[in-house]
Amino acid sequence: MSDLPKRIRILEEGPREGFQIEKGPIPTSRKIDLINSLSETGLEQIQVTSFVSPTAVPQMADAEELVKGFTRKPGVRYTGLWLNDKGLERAIATGKLDIRGSLSLTTSEKFLLRNQRRTHAQNVEAVRGMIAMFKHYNVEVNRASIMAVFGCNFEGDIPTSKVIDIAQQLFDLAEEGGCKIKTLSLADTMAWATPGSIRRVVGAVREKFPEVELSLHLHDTRGMGIANAYAGMEMGVAIFDAAVAGLGGCPFASHKGASGNVCTEDLVFMCDEMGIETGIDLEKLIESALLAEEVVGHPLPGSVKMGGSLAKLRKKVAEEAGKTV
Amino acid sequence: MSDLPKRIRILEEGPREGFQIEKGPIPTSRKIDLINSLSETGLEQIQVTSFVSPTAVPQMADAEELVKGFTRKPGVRYTGLWLNDKGLERAIATGKLDIRGSLSLTTSEKFLLRNQRRTHAQNVEAVRGMIAMFKHYNVEVNRASIMAVFGCNFEGDIPTSKVIDIAQQLFDLAEEGGCKIKTLSLADTMAWATPGSIRRVVGAVREKFPEVELSLHLHDTRGMGIANAYAGMEMGVAIFDAAVAGLGGCPFASHKGASGNVCTEDLVFMCDEMGIETGIDLEKLIESALLAEEVVGHPLPGSVKMGGSLAKLRKKVAEEAGKTV
Repeated sequence: MSDLPKRIRILEEGPREGFQIEKGPIPTSRKIDLINSLSETGLEQIQVTSFVSPTAVPQMADAEELVKGFTRKPGVRYTGLWLNDKGLERAIATGKLDIRGSLSLTTSEKFLLRNQRRTHAQNVEAVRGMIAMFKHYNVEVNRASIMAVFGCNFEGDIPTSKVIDIAQQLFDLAEEGGCKIKTLSLADTMAWATPGSIRRVVGAVREKFPEVELSLHLHDTRGMGIANAYAGMEMGVAIFDAAVAGLGGCPFASHKGASGNVCTEDLVFMCDEMGIETGIDLEKLIESALLAEEVVGHPLPGSVKMGGSLAKLRKKVAEEAGKTV
Repeated sequence: MSDLPKRIRILEEGPREGFQIEKGPIPTSRKIDLINSLSETGLEQIQVTSFVSPTAVPQMADAEELVKGFTRKPGVRYTGLWLNDKGLERAIATGKLDIRGSLSLTTSEKFLLRNQRRTHAQNVEAVRGMIAMFKHYNVEVNRASIMAVFGCNFEGDIPTSKVIDIAQQLFDLAEEGGCKIKTLSLADTMAWATPGSIRRVVGAVREKFPEVELSLHLHDTRGMGIANAYAGMEMGVAIFDAAVAGLGGCPFASHKGASGNVCTEDLVFMCDEMGIETGIDLEKLIESALLAEEVVGHPLPGSVKMGGSLAKLRKKVAEEAGKTV
């Protein structure tokens, strides 16, 4: 366990990941309530919305209104997601978001063809276009991510050598464009990872690119999210995407296949109990998680919001014993 | 990861753990359907019911009828739970169960007083009584378990030294009674464990009693079940209790605090993907998990029953590529 980090950074993606899968309309004011609540938890970064086509993702049609409505808390970074020039322009135009550039490639061409109707070669060109776009808007680029790192529903298992190869391509593209990648995010886009593959792939990437900071984006479709995060920490990973209450997932069959990110408060709970700092107040985060459930109007998968923290129980035990904590 | 076992044994407790928390009545025939379905999965042991007071646990009033009704599959052990002579007599009287003796102590006297209205000294006497009872009925005793190993809602954190001390008391009591404990089960009764405490406590117990086989009983109330099982495996633990579909837990607030065991099929999925044998057919187990959900009539917490296996996806990928697996 010697590689366990002393502190991890959690990047909240709940509002963006979560609301886009919801079928019913959610009032923008309620989304804003959740973002304002999350701002009070100690989270350092919150991804608030996507600037994507309202025809394709109707739940995100209120992106501008939402950004206008929430209250920025000093010290918190508020980010958005975009997939092209138009989205980036919309994000910049809000004048209220922290705009950072990120490059992305995918290990699986079959997934890419299906999901973005592009070949890998076209995707490489798209990255070049992205770099040019970021330059044009004077946006710094220091992050890259690889999708479908641990397996793909359409291509199957992904060899570790392919992940290394794609990472190298991203670093080369960045260098060619005059940027330097500081953080590389490995995304388990289709929830194929288990602790064994996390250790194997993270180990190989870390060995090949020791100077790069690694980050994990873990989907919890098969219940491995927390175990995978733990295995990542054992390999020294100290940055994780997460979603409050497990937003984006749902225990109802009508949302079958809904694959929420690893749950933020469950991750914070594990870290708290293992002496790993997150800077996040778990009790406040549990309040946000309960609010998230209220906002979407159905149960969300996170566990600690129901099970409660141990700090609270310890306090009760101490009070009953006539002591103070 | 060098301590990861090559094979683990999973002891299914779903029917017993799961049905006792359900509020509505479940027809005995449906419980039997689930047991018969589980019998076909490759599970080596299934705990089918509790022989407890029907007044205290009305859902278990059909214990005899249930045992009479299910079909024994050769090679599978079917067990029951009892807390006293009367329960053991009822279990033996069915003539259809695999009766094995187990001794149990609890780390937390406050929990014991609350849950069983006994002091620790009274509980030690109860263990002596249990040993005498097992002898009387000619039941072999080779297993012991410790409750509330990783923490207690009423006593707080439990020092590892106390766990060691209680384990020693169990071994001494067994020796005094002429039995030998081969397997020691460490139960996270109130879901206080995280991978860090699993490693610490299992490590200490293993070091002190290297000849004893360890087993983990993990509740998933705070979403740590699978991560804790993984941390246990890293410490060489190769026996786990589990509950199909996470029976015993429920994402509904009306079941708040319902703390299912770690989910059997999620655990089997992790093992399958990490090359750890379980002897269990995951596809059949997923069918049983979906049946369990039907039988209780509400969503259950397991993930793989919704996310599906990767073996199935790999097969589909191979078929589409015109190959065979």
